[in-house]
Amino acid sequence: MSRWEGNTRGRLEQAALDLFTEQGYDRTTVAQIAKRANLTERSFYRWFPDKREVLFGGSEELEERFVAAIHAVPGDTGPLATLMSAFTVAPQVYRPRDFLRKRTAVIAANPPLQERELIKLASLSQALTTALRERGHDAPTAHLAADAGMAILRTTAERWLADENADYAQLLSASAADLRTILTQDAAFTHP
Amino acid sequence: MSRWEGNTRGRLEQAALDLFTEQGYDRTTVAQIAKRANLTERSFYRWFPDKREVLFGGSEELEERFVAAIHAVPGDTGPLATLMSAFTVAPQVYRPRDFLRKRTAVIAANPPLQERELIKLASLSQALTTALRERGHDAPTAHLAADAGMAILRTTAERWLADENADYAQLLSASAADLRTILTQDAAFTHP
Repeated sequence: MSRWEGNTRGRLEQAALDLFTEQGYDRTTVAQIAKRANLTERSFYRWFPDKREVLFGGSEELEERFVAAIHAVPGDTGPLATLMSAFTVAPQVYRPRDFLRKRTAVIAANPPLQERELIKLASLSQALTTALRERGHDAPTAHLAADAGMAILRTTAERWLADENADYAQLLSASAADLRTILTQDAAFTHP
Repeated sequence: MSRWEGNTRGRLEQAALDLFTEQGYDRTTVAQIAKRANLTERSFYRWFPDKREVLFGGSEELEERFVAAIHAVPGDTGPLATLMSAFTVAPQVYRPRDFLRKRTAVIAANPPLQERELIKLASLSQALTTALRERGHDAPTAHLAADAGMAILRTTAERWLADENADYAQLLSASAADLRTILTQDAAFTHP
């Protein structure tokens, strides 16, 4: 049993994901999740405000780790390079791949979870923008760099989940290169 | 009175925005919106499923116009250039600047409206991805190009709202150039 599975929060997350996968998100109650994890409902609500939140247990930690890593990058680094360096901490925070794959499927099948995910991603994007601004980048640059960073992070996560042996930092570089190609292949855009 | 203000939907949108601005989103009812627009509640629900939706009246039309414009671009155009060309139709669909500025302020002040906006943006991004895929671009390229396009669209809209005399197509080009600079200024990302 990994350290994550052994803790209360991790047991609740795994129990919830298993039940959502087996019998559906709508049909699963907090009481059932707690019971499956051999815990009480009260324990559940100590960790999560509602049923939706149980699949987003790592989002705050990811945000905090990214922000801390951004502030640890040497000050003369460009905005996107700063984010790319910070993003390399992601695998230290991510849940196990098997958990994340099942989680992706459950979220894709349930609009309330999709909405919650959009809110979490918007919060993360906002945190990256704020951290870059605090490092002296102007607001439009910080916001655009955060947008680019979020696109790279999404692509990287998809590739990382699909390939058991992939190296996260290499995937980050490859995703950034792909985005750069898209931005540079049509140097002169034509307007009607 | 412009054509938009003269129609039923436009009158409801303007009445709702005025009331949200004057007395707050939470305190405004659908009955009050209908009354301010000299219409019935039934008229309101013919156009909008709920109170939140009244500020997103143009989102479906924008999506449809973008998708149609994407499919009208010559087939050998790169994915981002295709989006950039399609985006030039936006000012034909956008509500008047004064309306949009007040709308932005109301959305920023109300989390339920922020959530609805995130859902609308995700839907638009998905529509762009699908349209690019239908033109033969592979899934990762289409998704990354849509991400880049959404970032450019957001920046352009902000600049367009801030400057009464701005040319939309020029702002699109400038925003794309800024994103390109961010992507290319650190050609070699370093990893710890």
